Amino acid sequence: MPMDAVEATASSRGGVPLAELVQALGGQLEGCAARRVQRLAALADADEHGLSFVAHPRYQAQLQASRAGAVIASPALAPQVLQRPDPPPGGWAAWVVPDPYATFAAVTRWWRAHVQPRPAWRGVHPSAWIDPGARVDAEAHVGPFAVIEAGATVEAGAEIGAHAHVQARAHVGPGTRLGAHVVLGYDCRIGARGIVHGGTVIGADGFGFAPVPHEGGRRWDKIEQLGAVRIGDDVEIGANCCIDRGALGDTVLEDGVKLDNLIQIGHNVRVGRHTAMAGCVGIAGSARIGAFCTLGGGAIVLGHLELADHVHISAASVVMRSILQPGQYSGIFPIDDNRAWEKNAATLRQLHALRERLKVLERRTAP
Amino acid sequence: MPMDAVEATASSRGGVPLAELVQALGGQLEGCAARRVQRLAALADADEHGLSFVAHPRYQAQLQASRAGAVIASPALAPQVLQRPDPPPGGWAAWVVPDPYATFAAVTRWWRAHVQPRPAWRGVHPSAWIDPGARVDAEAHVGPFAVIEAGATVEAGAEIGAHAHVQARAHVGPGTRLGAHVVLGYDCRIGARGIVHGGTVIGADGFGFAPVPHEGGRRWDKIEQLGAVRIGDDVEIGANCCIDRGALGDTVLEDGVKLDNLIQIGHNVRVGRHTAMAGCVGIAGSARIGAFCTLGGGAIVLGHLELADHVHISAASVVMRSILQPGQYSGIFPIDDNRAWEKNAATLRQLHALRERLKVLERRTAP
Amino acid sequence: MPMDAVEATASSRGGVPLAELVQALGGQLEGCAARRVQRLAALADADEHGLSFVAHPRYQAQLQASRAGAVIASPALAPQVLQRPDPPPGGWAAWVVPDPYATFAAVTRWWRAHVQPRPAWRGVHPSAWIDPGARVDAEAHVGPFAVIEAGATVEAGAEIGAHAHVQARAHVGPGTRLGAHVVLGYDCRIGARGIVHGGTVIGADGFGFAPVPHEGGRRWDKIEQLGAVRIGDDVEIGANCCIDRGALGDTVLEDGVKLDNLIQIGHNVRVGRHTAMAGCVGIAGSARIGAFCTLGGGAIVLGHLELADHVHISAASVVMRSILQPGQYSGIFPIDDNRAWEKNAATLRQLHALRERLKVLERRTAP
Repeated sequence: MPMDAVEATASSRGGVPLAELVQALGGQLEGCAARRVQRLAALADADEHGLSFVAHPRYQAQLQASRAGAVIASPALAPQVLQRPDPPPGGWAAWVVPDPYATFAAVTRWWRAHVQPRPAWRGVHPSAWIDPGARVDAEAHVGPFAVIEAGATVEAGAEIGAHAHVQARAHVGPGTRLGAHVVLGYDCRIGARGIVHGGTVIGADGFGFAPVPHEGGRRWDKIEQLGAVRIGDDVEIGANCCIDRGALGDTVLEDGVKLDNLIQIGHNVRVGRHTAMAGCVGIAGSARIGAFCTLGGGAIVLGHLELADHVHISAASVVMRSILQPGQYSGIFPIDDNRAWEKNAATLRQLHALRERLKVLERRTAP
Repeated sequence: MPMDAVEATASSRGGVPLAELVQALGGQLEGCAARRVQRLAALADADEHGLSFVAHPRYQAQLQASRAGAVIASPALAPQVLQRPDPPPGGWAAWVVPDPYATFAAVTRWWRAHVQPRPAWRGVHPSAWIDPGARVDAEAHVGPFAVIEAGATVEAGAEIGAHAHVQARAHVGPGTRLGAHVVLGYDCRIGARGIVHGGTVIGADGFGFAPVPHEGGRRWDKIEQLGAVRIGDDVEIGANCCIDRGALGDTVLEDGVKLDNLIQIGHNVRVGRHTAMAGCVGIAGSARIGAFCTLGGGAIVLGHLELADHVHISAASVVMRSILQPGQYSGIFPIDDNRAWEKNAATLRQLHALRERLKVLERRTAP
Repeated sequence: MPMDAVEATASSRGGVPLAELVQALGGQLEGCAARRVQRLAALADADEHGLSFVAHPRYQAQLQASRAGAVIASPALAPQVLQRPDPPPGGWAAWVVPDPYATFAAVTRWWRAHVQPRPAWRGVHPSAWIDPGARVDAEAHVGPFAVIEAGATVEAGAEIGAHAHVQARAHVGPGTRLGAHVVLGYDCRIGARGIVHGGTVIGADGFGFAPVPHEGGRRWDKIEQLGAVRIGDDVEIGANCCIDRGALGDTVLEDGVKLDNLIQIGHNVRVGRHTAMAGCVGIAGSARIGAFCTLGGGAIVLGHLELADHVHISAASVVMRSILQPGQYSGIFPIDDNRAWEKNAATLRQLHALRERLKVLERRTAP
């Protein structure tokens, strides 16, 4: 059934019964038990047909002002959901769960599965080019103009997007989706239930060259990159990222890693399980990032460094030495109006000299 | 007519009469009225057959040294154009206008339209795959191996580049051009007269996950991204950018926004009209950028922040708090030779302690 | 012969004789002359069938601990290779050369050519679309769904990847390889023996606009980009980079330039020969970078600046003024634990004031 029809149906019947959601995903329904949900929305945007969530007491003011007919809330905040002024006919509804944010995430997945399905190719598009030596499961899906080369394997439930390119001997695990224009390089592997968004290139050559004296300077002689990329299960990679193949061994992303867009992962990097990186991060070659880490947008990690598990790097910070203790680390020049910045930046260039002058003063005035 | 022939013709007839350009685009022609223009060029590169421009008095020295046969100039600078030494046969020409830079921009567009046309597909290439449920205007152009899915609409004069991918129910406004390999995600919309350069991905999933306790740390459970991207009229987006779809509502680029290459726009961001961003900028989720702003290359804006209208962020600066007053803001560590930087950076890590030592001294020496 | 068969053969015969490698690439073989090499590996990972290298005395401890059967070493370190404890049957082997790293690079290339060939298309794939007005050498290779437009030339030995797009009148030199989804824009040229990795866009429009007063602010009127991109010989460009076409003249990468992934090169930039840039670097328009320079990952160079030859910029540093003296330059905020950073960053915003207070103290306590 085409998707527009599904939406029309859902809308014409007045939305999904909230009780159906609660039954499917767990928790207690308090207040108006007959409420129906027509859309998911943030507290500020929702009307009485909307389902929203409140994850932290600091959002109490937004909750008070919200017209969301139903709100996912913790036991502590549920009374405030129900006691908002000026209730709609039938009253407010609270969906009480221990972790409202996690439940809201589950609702979005239920919604995607049942109400607002993602458009997707089913089966193999006739324009795709699949080498006879590739093995594509009968339950896999391949979009228009996709290319799958000899020796590649695509498992059941996998989706290969339009113009995507699975190179020789690469492996796509079950249920994994490669977006439009994704390149999965030869010999590279991705596990089960992964998502790779459009334009990402996995398995390009790492940046490896040997300097050789040349014309008063040096040229760079190529080091062939003989490794590959191995990606675990449940990994999501954003759009237009680059995950380079290893020089000798492999570049590795462990299970559950989540990468945002435009991220660069150099050759032979290893990223530990369930580590997440925001957009525009760059990890130089041979760095080892621990498990359960987070890197803010635009952060840079230099090559051959190590980050322990549970290390958190603030946005735009540059990691220049290994960090072996868990914690939050930052290195950001504070933004200021340009005039103030100019003065402070100019002074910063004399900072060491200022310290020396301070030492002189300390000696001179020593009591 | 193939383009080489056009160029040859223009060249053989000795270029375009300057008077024709002035008549088409406005302004006064002073000096040699018979001058012809064979090429557009910077002051330093132009010869007597070249047309150049001078936009500011600070370029007077370059103007004096320039051999450009014709120069677009303000009334104030026009005399200097004409009085340069050693004029070519017929003399120098000045094209006098109130805003030479804007007129030069108009000349480049005239040149593109009449002398040096951009190669482009006309009509629908036979290799393109267009779903029967898509609506492609008879006056639209579709390149080889492009894919247009069910429910998509492509308006008159639009150009869909080679390998571009217009997903289900997406909309391409009249006269808008999607470059090679561009992805316009399902339900996303771009207005009239837009340009999107090669490899840009519009409508990949935003980076949204809920943390769930797992194995001594936490895993990240996906939040389906149920919104889309809405782009106004006259928007230009560079190559290999990423504009993510919203989580619940939409990500929005208003009319006249200009983005350079490799820019990341997170989910639910709103960028105000006529704001421009240079290459490698990253805007994290739910940030709201005002109208008429500029962001220098590599600048980062953290999530959920607000920038007022007319805010200008210097290159590589990190916006960590909302900026509600117009102005120029910066936060850049000043570059220095490595030895000086090392000393100053080391001292910076003791800066707060230095301030405390200074306070002690101030108390000790208080008059 | 398919590649799996080649590997199987190499493995079944017990690897490549080390003597064969030495004969092919030069140097002296000391120790076990009969050793065979099954794989190339880092010192830490290699077993007795592995060939490794040691490039610097600082790796002596790793060398001592390594089980690599054969090691490429300088004359000074060769004795340590041979005298390691607990040798395998037949003993250790040292391959003695003046520059072990350069020899190791040559070994990787030999290995790629003879043992582990890169999978590649041979000839022209039947699904490619080549305009009758293009000239593709009979010895060139074109992958599936590639597009080559009118007036383009592709020289002998060149490889055009799957879905790559060579636009009108573009030129691909002999032996140059364009990866999957690469766009080589109209009129752009790349010389001999180049490599461009997947998703890179060469010849998108530079970011050029003239500001025009509009609605209380200004809009941006397009400056058509009438130049192109010229790339020399032996240039390697990583994945998902952007090299913009010039506004009037051309953007130029000279011979031997090496660019990593996700790099932005603005319009009219000129990069001197054998300069190398790590991932995520951004070079703004009209900058001139000298020869033999290096730029660390994430570095930014502002527009219209000049870098002399042999200038080295540290990772994530921002070049805000021309640098005319060779040397190493840095500008990085030192990372610290978040609490320390917050204190120091806050103090930094008062740095100029602190300097003034220090001056007061100096005057007050002057002897």
